[in-house]
This record gives sequence, structure tokens and C-alpha cells, in this order.
Amino acid sequence: MTARKGNLMMVRDDIKVLDATIRDGGLCNNFEFSDEFVQELYKTNIKSGVDYMEFGYRASKNLFDESQFGKWKFCAEEDIRNIVGDNISDMKISVMADVGRTDFKEDFIPKAESVIDMVRVACYIHQMPAAIEMIEHFHTLGYETACNIMAATQANTGQLEEALEMLGQSNVDIIYLVDSYGAFYPENAGDYVKKYVEVAEKYGKQVGFHAHNNQNLAFANTVETMSYGASYLDATAMGMGRGAGNCAMELLLGFLKNPKYNLYSLLTFIENYMIPLKASGVKWGYDIQYLLTGQLNRHPREAIAFTKEGRTDYCEFYKQLLDFD
Amino acid sequence: MTARKGNLMMVRDDIKVLDATIRDGGLCNNFEFSDEFVQELYKTNIKSGVDYMEFGYRASKNLFDESQFGKWKFCAEEDIRNIVGDNISDMKISVMADVGRTDFKEDFIPKAESVIDMVRVACYIHQMPAAIEMIEHFHTLGYETACNIMAATQANTGQLEEALEMLGQSNVDIIYLVDSYGAFYPENAGDYVKKYVEVAEKYGKQVGFHAHNNQNLAFANTVETMSYGASYLDATAMGMGRGAGNCAMELLLGFLKNPKYNLYSLLTFIENYMIPLKASGVKWGYDIQYLLTGQLNRHPREAIAFTKEGRTDYCEFYKQLLDFD
Repeated sequence: MTARKGNLMMVRDDIKVLDATIRDGGLCNNFEFSDEFVQELYKTNIKSGVDYMEFGYRASKNLFDESQFGKWKFCAEEDIRNIVGDNISDMKISVMADVGRTDFKEDFIPKAESVIDMVRVACYIHQMPAAIEMIEHFHTLGYETACNIMAATQANTGQLEEALEMLGQSNVDIIYLVDSYGAFYPENAGDYVKKYVEVAEKYGKQVGFHAHNNQNLAFANTVETMSYGASYLDATAMGMGRGAGNCAMELLLGFLKNPKYNLYSLLTFIENYMIPLKASGVKWGYDIQYLLTGQLNRHPREAIAFTKEGRTDYCEFYKQLLDFD
Repeated sequence: MTARKGNLMMVRDDIKVLDATIRDGGLCNNFEFSDEFVQELYKTNIKSGVDYMEFGYRASKNLFDESQFGKWKFCAEEDIRNIVGDNISDMKISVMADVGRTDFKEDFIPKAESVIDMVRVACYIHQMPAAIEMIEHFHTLGYETACNIMAATQANTGQLEEALEMLGQSNVDIIYLVDSYGAFYPENAGDYVKKYVEVAEKYGKQVGFHAHNNQNLAFANTVETMSYGASYLDATAMGMGRGAGNCAMELLLGFLKNPKYNLYSLLTFIENYMIPLKASGVKWGYDIQYLLTGQLNRHPREAIAFTKEGRTDYCEFYKQLLDFD
């Protein structure tokens, strides 16, 4: 059994906080953030001590019609530069590329010419060979790479061990445990992350954790996985993210003891940008329909539809979920 | 180091779920619940497998003007009987009595004549001798007794050890760890509850946990303390309770593996009674002002005032909180 790293008072220098507001939050508003919003968030993240800011997906323009989405679904180099210039800050910039939904061979320039620092490859466990092909490509181009194995709670133990071993032997830098369905209890999340950390330590890699808040456990699970050695921690302003959302940045920064992290700018950003965004009707966050899909370890799609329809017949919804089994 | 009891799959027969919706939730609406609401909650709790339902406080009518509060601040025997009759269910009934705010010698009849099963004595740590006097009185009258030591996160270790030892030597049945300020992280809560369990096991008593949701950790902390041996778990429908509220009953019942617990009735009650209650303007639940007082291990009174005033200037509020230090 791996021991906890550090304690509740000390600074862990390996910790890196990644803001995924535009990327995971973009799933709530079709990536339609104003430039002002993204620019203010960028400045806020720098002032708050955030280590990475993820600008969105680099999705295939062949598969997705650019006119149907905000620009952060595609994250063109010039759109990022329009916000960050040459990014002279210490904060690094990442984008996400989904296996099967990106033209990775055409759409990425060498790191030396790009303002992007890291590419995170998201995949389901059966897509691991495709993910590794992408990772090696991005690595060769000079980027830091991460692999986010989604829906880890639905992968069986044997599959997961094989996937971790494949990643261990690849050039990936960071292996992410992803609780796509918000199904983890802290004790589960801890048990899973120990497996990831074991492989990562063997191969000299880092581990990250990406939470969802279906059971109001996104922050708790983040703290738990961190305590067992996850270093890369995803969070979003006010927890904005698909369905029940993610770990709230304000909870995480308030927890971390490194004095480089602070809350002031983020609280101002929340007041000026996140509260109006919520008031405008963009929906995310913990609610009973999400706790039900989380408890059942299920994709939140039915809960998202339930939310869109403005339903509150939770008991009927629960019965429907069980009927789908 | 105490080991975890049981695992995430098995049934723990020592677990008792206590619904505190009327009592802690009453702090949000001045205890002004309709009889229909309380009666439906009573029926819902029985159908859901809840073990105890707390009806409110038995506050002193000399100290508090009856005309200024709903009846559940006083919990007259006849008012409870008006809802439950002789309570022929398996569910037990509790009331809370605060040290210094109850006429405990005058206002309690012997258990043999009462429909109440348990009296929970709430106190701050410096009130321990007064709490024990009350506990012994209630014990002599024939009631089950619990002692809820509030604000445990502000008691120093020496005080807490002495208080636990005093309770160990008393006739109290259940010792509650109470996170009044929502300041615990799961690892803290686990460390604290281990101390409580150690004393409880030595003296043949049970341990309970009462959470607050300031940092969205009420459920996580409940699960964590349970795993280290807390048996009595407080929860409320939709987490209704003062400020950021409590552990949500729907999260807890969905987690527990004992088939006697089920969600159907509770989901219907939430739809029919809790959603309209929220819509009527009664306020509770996680919000940024509460996370700030929770992180600072402070009473939520300033955050409650901030909420009532409809403020969203979180950064200014945070600066004010730090000025109070």
C-alpha cells in the first residue's frame, strides 16, 4: 500500500494545477466564450498561480463544422496567440485532442513554432494503441504529452493494467486518471490512483487526476488522489464543466498550501464573469439527476437531457435509468 | 492507526442514519414547516429505511418567544404526536437540546410516557460539565442520549481528549463529532473520528458524525468518518441545513449498501416538497462565501449575512474575513 505523500500543511512542489474551464466548460456552452472572458481568465490564472491553462480541443475541421461551434473547439494557433501573445508568463498552455476526432498529423506544428506547451490525448481504454500513436507524434514534435484515459471506472482491472503498462513504455509525460462519470468514492479513487502512481514511478512519469462532481465528490476525490501521489490536478472556475462539472478551482486553490496559489483574482473573476455566465442560462453543476448517474457509474447523457428539459421528476428518472440497465 | 471498518460493498449493521432536516433545516426557515411537510417527510423516512428522525429543538419557552418561531423549535410532545401518533414504525424519534437554551428539568417527561426515543445534547467544549448533567438527567428519565460536541475543529487536542474521557465515563450512548464550520478535509475528519472511536470502544459507546457542506465535503467527510467507525450518520433532504447545509440524504442513502435503504420515496419527496421549498426562497447550500469561512475554520455567520444581502462581491468579502482575524 502506497503511503500518503506530504501532509495537510506542507507544500508539495510536484503539484501542478491545470485550469480546464474553457475546455470542459466549453461543453456547456458550445465553446462560445467571448474573447474578453478568455483573456480575463488567462490573466486571472496567471495571478492565481495556476500552472497550466487548457484552451480547448483541437478538433478536426473535417469532422466538425466550424460554423457550428465556438473557436475553442478548434484552438487555432492564431486564436490562442490572439489571447496570450507569446505567453511570456510562467503558466503553460495546453490543448486536448480526442482520439478519432482530430487531424493530428496535419493540424499540429512543431512545438518550437507554437505557443502550446502540452497536448493532452483523451481516449477510451480500447483506443490505447491509437492514443499512443498520437502521443509519440506529439512527443516527436516537441510537446509535453498527457494521456487521459476516460471512464476509468468502467474499465476492467486487467485492461487498465495493460493500458498503464503501454503508457509506461511510451514517451508520454503524464498519465491521467479520469472519473468521467463522477462514480468514484474517495476510497476508490485512492485505490485507483495508487496503481497509476506505481506504474508512473516505475517509468519516471507523473500522474494527474480529472474529477467530475456528480456525487459532490470532485474536490474530495482530487484531494484524496493528490494525497496518494497525483501531481497534475484539473479544476475549473466554479466547477464549470459538462453535466455536474469538475473540481472547483476556488476549492482547490484554497486547499493548497503553496503560497504561490491565491484566491483574490479568482474571486473577482467569478463575480465579474462566472456569475453572469450562470445568470445567462448556461447550466452546469451538481444536481440530483447527476448523482443518480454517478451512483450507477453511467455516462451523464440522460441526466444532461433531463436538465435541458427542465424536469424535476427525479423518481421517474431514476426508474428510467434502472430500466436502461 | 485504526483500520477501516468493512468495505465499499458490504453492509455494516451498526450504521444508523439520522434525518435532521427539520432540526438543522429549521435554522433556514425559522422552523416554519407545514404539518403536511413534516408528515410527508416522516412517511418518506420510514419508507427510505432511515433509522432516526429528529423533529427539532426542545428550546426553552422562557428564553425564546413561542410566537416568533415555528413549533419545531420547541417540539412539544403533542406536536410530535400530532404527526406520528404513537410512532408504531421501527424508526426512532429524536429531539435536540442545546446546553443553556433548554429547561431540561421541567420540559421532559419520562421516556415511558413520551414518543421521543433519543435526546441529543449539543454543547461547545467548555460546556461539557453542563452537557453531562443534562445527559445524566435524560438517561435517568429513560432516553437514549447523544452528545454533539460542536465546533470540534476549534477545540484544542487536550480539551478534546478530556471531553471525550468525561463522556466515556458518563452514561451517554453516542458521542458525535460535529464539523460545525465545514472546516474538515476528509483526512482531518478521519484523524479526529479515530480518537472518538478509540474512546467509544473503550467505554462501549457509539460514535456519530454531523457534517456541514461549506467546502462541498459533507458527504465525503461522512463517508470517511463512517469508514473509520462512525455509526450514527446525520443527513438531511437535499442537504437542507444552516448556511452551506449538511450531508445530503440522497447521497448517503445511495452510497449505503444495506438494502433496507432506498431512494425512491426520497426522490418523490424532494420533487414534491424540497424543490418548492427552495423555489419559495428558503436558502441553503454550498456557495463560495461558505467555502471561504470553511477554509478559515470560522463560524458561518458572516457568510449567512452575505447570502441574505444577496451579495456576490466574493473578493471583498474574503478581504473582510481576513480583516476580522
